[in-house]
Amino acid sequence: MDPDAVAKAFVEHYYRTFDGNRAALGGLYQDASMLTFEGDKIQGTAAIVAKLTSLPFQQCAHAISTVDCQPSGPAGGVLVFVSGSLQLAGESHTLKFSQMFHLMPTPQGSFYVLNDIFRLNYA
Amino acid sequence: MDPDAVAKAFVEHYYRTFDGNRAALGGLYQDASMLTFEGDKIQGTAAIVAKLTSLPFQQCAHAISTVDCQPSGPAGGVLVFVSGSLQLAGESHTLKFSQMFHLMPTPQGSFYVLNDIFRLNYA
Repeated sequence: MDPDAVAKAFVEHYYRTFDGNRAALGGLYQDASMLTFEGDKIQGTAAIVAKLTSLPFQQCAHAISTVDCQPSGPAGGVLVFVSGSLQLAGESHTLKFSQMFHLMPTPQGSFYVLNDIFRLNYA
Repeated sequence: MDPDAVAKAFVEHYYRTFDGNRAALGGLYQDASMLTFEGDKIQGTAAIVAKLTSLPFQQCAHAISTVDCQPSGPAGGVLVFVSGSLQLAGESHTLKFSQMFHLMPTPQGSFYVLNDIFRLNYA
């Protein structure tokens, strides 16, 4: 398992899905998964999808600036730390953000998101 | 174990030590620990301390804006996600940063830093 390859593939898939079909992000989470979105703590696939699909914008485009990753320990997890910017439909300026994910392996040889923390970078 | 209490105590201790006696941060890492500092990957206590003490500024003061945390899985770890700003001695402006830590329990009932990823937030 190459953490860099896992992180790169995950980041491309996650933000492409977020920008194209946000409800489909549910396939990346499980019931133990946690999302902290701007300080708001949410647990479980259904609640996380409800949060992500109810954000106050319909269309958006993420642009990724940096992706850092590290193995998270003997259980085979990968920590992914992303910085980038978010363009909302109809807005001229972009919002900078930082986000971290803790990916854990599934028995099927894929990964799911156990931990997800998102923060806008206020200037 | 209350992850919020662990995160709060760790963050206070980490940045106070960073600003007051950076070499003493070595006590928080172990040989398996990893630091990714602005994309530069470093492993092990000695190499991490060498990196942190050779940064191109002697005095600094961190101000913390947000601290988010989540338990990282059944092994008892805690993920901590910090945003804040860094004031360097002799500089009038501050640098915004985001940083994440993965804390793991020690047999002595304390925590050490297994993963540490730091990024400045470029405007």
